Order: sequence, then C-alpha cells, then structure tokens
Amino acid sequence: MTADPDGIKIAARVDELGATIVDCGVAARGGLAAGLQLARVCLAGLGEVRLQSGGLTGARVVVSTDQPVAACMGSQYAGWQIAPAAANGYFAMGSGPMRAAAGKEPLIAEIGCAESPDQVVGVLESGKLPPAAVTEYIASACGVPADQVTLLVAPTASLAGAIQVVARSVETALHKLHELGFDLTQIQSGFGAAPLPPVAKDDLQGIGWTNDAVLYGAEVTLWVDADDDAIAEIGPRIPSCASPDYGSPFGEIFRRYNGDFYKIDPNLFSPALIHIQNLRSSRRQTFGQRDEALLRQSFGL
Amino acid sequence: MTADPDGIKIAARVDELGATIVDCGVAARGGLAAGLQLARVCLAGLGEVRLQSGGLTGARVVVSTDQPVAACMGSQYAGWQIAPAAANGYFAMGSGPMRAAAGKEPLIAEIGCAESPDQVVGVLESGKLPPAAVTEYIASACGVPADQVTLLVAPTASLAGAIQVVARSVETALHKLHELGFDLTQIQSGFGAAPLPPVAKDDLQGIGWTNDAVLYGAEVTLWVDADDDAIAEIGPRIPSCASPDYGSPFGEIFRRYNGDFYKIDPNLFSPALIHIQNLRSSRRQTFGQRDEALLRQSFGL
Amino acid sequence: MTADPDGIKIAARVDELGATIVDCGVAARGGLAAGLQLARVCLAGLGEVRLQSGGLTGARVVVSTDQPVAACMGSQYAGWQIAPAAANGYFAMGSGPMRAAAGKEPLIAEIGCAESPDQVVGVLESGKLPPAAVTEYIASACGVPADQVTLLVAPTASLAGAIQVVARSVETALHKLHELGFDLTQIQSGFGAAPLPPVAKDDLQGIGWTNDAVLYGAEVTLWVDADDDAIAEIGPRIPSCASPDYGSPFGEIFRRYNGDFYKIDPNLFSPALIHIQNLRSSRRQTFGQRDEALLRQSFGL
Repeated sequence: MTADPDGIKIAARVDELGATIVDCGVAARGGLAAGLQLARVCLAGLGEVRLQSGGLTGARVVVSTDQPVAACMGSQYAGWQIAPAAANGYFAMGSGPMRAAAGKEPLIAEIGCAESPDQVVGVLESGKLPPAAVTEYIASACGVPADQVTLLVAPTASLAGAIQVVARSVETALHKLHELGFDLTQIQSGFGAAPLPPVAKDDLQGIGWTNDAVLYGAEVTLWVDADDDAIAEIGPRIPSCASPDYGSPFGEIFRRYNGDFYKIDPNLFSPALIHIQNLRSSRRQTFGQRDEALLRQSFGL
Repeated sequence: MTADPDGIKIAARVDELGATIVDCGVAARGGLAAGLQLARVCLAGLGEVRLQSGGLTGARVVVSTDQPVAACMGSQYAGWQIAPAAANGYFAMGSGPMRAAAGKEPLIAEIGCAESPDQVVGVLESGKLPPAAVTEYIASACGVPADQVTLLVAPTASLAGAIQVVARSVETALHKLHELGFDLTQIQSGFGAAPLPPVAKDDLQGIGWTNDAVLYGAEVTLWVDADDDAIAEIGPRIPSCASPDYGSPFGEIFRRYNGDFYKIDPNLFSPALIHIQNLRSSRRQTFGQRDEALLRQSFGL
Repeated sequence: MTADPDGIKIAARVDELGATIVDCGVAARGGLAAGLQLARVCLAGLGEVRLQSGGLTGARVVVSTDQPVAACMGSQYAGWQIAPAAANGYFAMGSGPMRAAAGKEPLIAEIGCAESPDQVVGVLESGKLPPAAVTEYIASACGVPADQVTLLVAPTASLAGAIQVVARSVETALHKLHELGFDLTQIQSGFGAAPLPPVAKDDLQGIGWTNDAVLYGAEVTLWVDADDDAIAEIGPRIPSCASPDYGSPFGEIFRRYNGDFYKIDPNLFSPALIHIQNLRSSRRQTFGQRDEALLRQSFGL
C-alpha cells in the first residue's frame, strides 16, 4: 500500500518513535481500493476481499478464506480496545495481526494463534490518528520496538473504514459460534457477502449502518467438519434473528439502551443468513434470512 | 498485453514510423481478456475492470476507481476525434492517456490533467487500423517521436471493443455531471456496472447497443464531497431518463434524427441509475432507474 | 500452489518415481483457493475461474476463456479415464494439460492440440492418491520421465473437487456442441457460471450434485463465428433440457438406470441455459433455462 500511496489516496508517515502510520481515511481520503487492502490486512492476508456489483446498494463486499479461525478470530476480530491511559482519551478498536503478538485476549491463546514476531501490523478503527503514546503502548504490548510497528487507521465513518467493517461477515459468524460454544477448529472455510452501506458522517452512525449491513444483509457460508445434530441444535441460535434485540436498525437499538453498548444483547451480532455445510456428512443447513426492507429503512433508501 | 499476444488473441506490430499498433479486434480476434485490458488502458490504469456473471445478458462489465476525474475524464472519455486530413477519411474516437499529452481539449486543462510525457499510449475506437498519417498526427499532437507512440485499436463492433465501451458507466456519469456544471473535483470514487450487450456486426449497430447498455442498463455509485442541496437540485437531471430523447433504443433515436448524431439531446448520454453518496453529509440520493424491457427489445432477447 | 501449500491447505510430495503429487482434497483438506487453482490448472492456465457471491447456494463458480477449444476440450475435459491394469483397481477421471501429451483420445488430434512436452501436469478426479503404477502409466503415455510428471488430485466429494467440476460450465457446452457435430473452431470465447453445490460425502453423491449444478443451474455464453441458420437448427438440441432424461436430479436418473452410467442419454450433459452470440451476424440466440426448484430438491435446500 505504501508503494503508491497517492494511487489509493492514503498517507503514510513515520511517527516520532519510528512507527509507520498509514492513514486510510482520517485526514487522507482513502477509497475503494484502500478499503479492500485494509480489509485484507485485517485478515492477515489469509483471505480475499472483493467488491461485487449488485444488491440493495449497488455494491457488495465479498470475503473468502480457507483459514477462517486464524484470519477472522486470530486477526480480523476487533478484540483489542486500544485506549491506553497515557493517550488521554484516544480510543480505537484494534484488529489485525498485532493481536496475535499482543496476547492480550484469552481468545488468542485459546485458538492457538499467539506469536512473537519481530514486527507487527495492526489496524485501528478510529476517527483519530494514534499519538505516540498509542504506538508505544502497542509496541510494548507486542514486545517489539516502536519502529517495528505499522498501524493502518480508518474511521468507521469513511469509505475504506466501512469496507473493512463490512468485510467482517464471516468473522461475525465465527464470533457468534464461539459465543455459543462451537469448537471453531471445526470450521474449514468461509465465504460471505454483505451490502456496502452508505458512508456515515460520524462514527456512531457508521457503526449503526455497518452493523445493519451485517445483521440484516450478510449471507455467510461456512464449511465445517462437525456433528450434524450439534449444528442442528445450535443453528437456530446463530443468525442475528435469534436475538430478542433483532428487528430494528442498530441505531434505534443503541438509543433504546441509552447508548450503553454493553446492554445490547451480545447474541445480536451475527450475520442475517448463514449456511453451514457439513463436510463430514454432506448436510447443508441454513439459518436466518436477510431483511431488505429494514436495510432500506436504516440506510434511508 | 504484448508479452503474450496470442494468449489474448491480439496482434502487435511496429508501423513504418516505429509506433506500436496493438490490434484488439480489427483483423485480430480479441476477446474477453483483451477487452478488459483495453478498458484498463482507457482508464490509464487508474481503475479496475472486471466481468461479473448475472443480469439480462449473463455478463456485466464492472468498473471501479478512486481517481474518477483523472481516470474517466482525463483518459477514458473518448473526447479526441482522430481524423487528420492527411489520413484520407480515417476516423477513430480517441481515448486513453494520450489525451492528456495532446491537450487538444479544453476539458484536459480544466481538470488539470495536462502532461508532457516522453511516450504516450492511446486507444482508438475504430474499425480500421491507423495508417502512418494517423500515427504521425498523434505523435505530433502529443509532442513525442512517433516511435514513442502505442495505439490500441478495436471497433465498437468487436467483443473487446464492446467491453471497453460498456466499461464507461462511471465515465458517462461524470461527463453528464460536467455538462450540468457540477464541480468534478468533488467526486472521490466511482463504482459502476452495465450489461455486456451482444457484439454488433457493424459499428452503427455497436454504438446503438453499447449506448443502450449504459443508457438503460448501467448502475453507478459516486462518492462525492459536496452540498446536499446542490445534489438534490441537479440530481433529477443526471440520469438518462431526464432527456426527452429517453425511451427508445438508441438506434431508433439515431434514425429519428436521420443519422445526425449531433441532433440527439446531449443530455441523453448518462447511466440509467445513479446513486450519489455524499461523504460530507452521509446522505445518499438515487436518481433514475434501469429499463430491462427496453434492453430486451434493443438486444433482441 | 506448492510455494505455499499450508496457505491453501494442500499437501505436495514427491513419490518414489520422482513425480510430484499435489493432494488438494484426499488426505489434505483443500478449500476454496485450492479449488480455484485446481480449476485453472484444468484449463491449462488458458482461462480464469472465480467465486462470485449470489444465487441459490450463496456462491457461484464463474469461468472465462478466450481459448475455449484448447482450454476446455484440449485440457479441462475429463476425457482420459486413468485405470491402468497394473494399478489394481485405481480409478480417476483424468484432465488437464497432460491429455494433450498423451494423445490417447481422438479428440486431441481432431482439435489440433497434440503436443510433445518435456514435462506434464495433470488433474485426477479421484478419492485416492495415485500409486506409483499410475504415475508410471501416465509418464509412459505422455512420453516423459516420471520425475517430470505433476499430478493434482481431488475427489468429487471435496470442496476443491466440487469447485473444479462446477468450473466446467463452458466445457460442458463445448462437449455437447462437439457431439452435435458443430465445428468447435468456430467458438471464439466462453463465459459461464454455475452454483457451487454442497460438498458431498461420497463421490457418487458428489457426481450427482455437481452434475445438477451444471445441468439445471449453469448459464453459458459462447461467442462464435458461424452460420445463424446452423445455430438455429442445432440450438434447441444444445441445452440439457433437450434430453429425454432431463427433469430429475442426476442421482435419481443414475438409479433409474441401475447405476449404469453409459445408459444415461449422453445428450443430457450440457448447461441448463446457453446464449450463442454469433460474431458473424451479431445475432444472439438463447436456448434452455435454469430450474431452481429442481436444484433445491437435489441439494436438499
């Protein structure tokens, strides 16, 4: 990406600690190509992300991976909240390969993705570029010198940021399955698509629209090697419609809980529609469905 | 492309002045891959073009760019009519990066794309390979020696030619916006698709079908940084249906005006359906609609 | 593929004769990327294969080629049944570039694809990795030393295997046209898509589902240079629905004939829907239609 920053409208700079900061949508404009590249970095390069024409908004973000646990849970999942005390209120959702080096999350050890690399790459979903205190915090957590850190940054409310979030259709399915106690090592491959929502003007609206794109618009296929009965039993609980909070645009749900994210049912966060194809038995089971009317309402179409 | 001409069924030769002429569909057969490459050259490499399965004809040409003004207006727009007196009636619609070097069009200066390169690449939409007088004319206009000119040629009535024309969905939207006085520098990214029409047997039929693919079949999304009210005001005038000439196959319209292209309402030339997403406000506005019945009639489906 | 076998979950080994055996789905897991690569090898690299989101099963396999006769008939068609007596009952459907070197099939000579290379690559659709007797047989048939043979293997009942079979939409059309006596050299380019079916638990079920994906779900466009009347006359006989055996899932048809493959009407094997675009006349003719209800029944959706 840094070989031709102007070509994809990003800006790369080296901060005072020597870390490389790649702005994909804060002060830089970013765009479609930057978003696709950013999404691939989130997957640690272990999957493919493309734009496809069609659907409600005219464009879909399609993701494909044969390393779903490492790509989505070990890297793409934004499981690291970056808000060091020294950074005076800076906040970012942290994802990307750096999570495996930081080892901050029990999930990383649990799925066997912990690693001790010489350099790290991370993705920050944030409306602000990270100050040096953030770079220092990440370097220290990952056990590397600050000049071996590369951080890519985009707000949810940017075109590149929206693409990288909506590329999380398969990840959201894996995360939900993990919450439901499904052994993730049984998941062999994943393929998913979600509509590219409008780009929001602030991150709160952006979080609403990107969530709706997945909760009400994503279709995911997982190929697993598992027990059919276990899938049939857990299946109806997988898609977003299994949650009592399902049925309204995310922004409304958020306001209903007075803006307290942690009061929202965690089981809401899942794709609208999921196909689970069991490689052990050949049985294919489908759970959930998309809701285009709700997406039109949410996106104002 | 010239590294494996047989692989994509093109023919490259050096003419008597030393210019490289790449035949993508005149005497050479060309094909799908040649058409996609040709379309990327038209965009000066500043965008991506792909074929996608689906839609009325089974295939859609999808284009994506984060440099819409330079890619589409500065290069892809066929704004240079190549018909030097010395060439005895030779005619081609000229597009590609050479337009920025020739500086023949006020548009090039206006959008700040003029350049003085050491070599040029151009695309000729024509049923004939260019004689030396054409090469000489282009070299001279671009201020380069003739042996630093590369010209790719395909007729509208060829598979590669049809692909490169139908890859102009985003360009057509920008051109129309420019005609309507919209400040193009406000346009940040573009994504569009149009059905691949049948390949015509002559260029007149080809111009009809490729125009219909865009006028009645193209869906374009532009991400802009602009004023909502200005978009709302100009919006209804953008899509092809805003023209009084809208509603018949292009071939019929052409005959209605006794074959006088310049009597056709210039406002007709625009995509069928356009989404304008304002990055400044987050508002998304949609104008126009596709007309599959008319496309079936036009294409004889 | 062998540069990063773990990345795409394949296993490459050198057998006792020095041949390279690339397991894409027998003991190795394989996956989406392995299947796409395998499909490209089947086409001898003379075409492109991609996954696209959408359709009945959420994913389609899309194939595109400008060398349809060499790619599909000269390489991809599984016309070489690999069952040497010395291999004690081993059986594989053989495809890929090795067929052109073996020259076992009259088709290869007929289409002018015979060649005498120094090394060969082949694809085996089989549930078992080939023993040395198979390597030896192939090396000998192709006139190369065994250590110049590379064989890629995947069962029909694997994710990679299903992808490579379903990538045969264009090939199936060409094969049927050849059976109907159409001069294949008239076919210039091909583009097709078929739904990715569920992955079967055994090869019999796999053959049923992958056949149904093509027979009832594939849409193919061929660009030809031929006579319109000849196309109109042969056209209605091209799609699968022209066969009296059309109308039931392939597994049922197979059982109806007591498992005797050779009693099934050979004219059944063709895409559901085919567009033939005549470059000579500009006329586009469409034959057949898809049957989603039957696919739902077959795939158990």
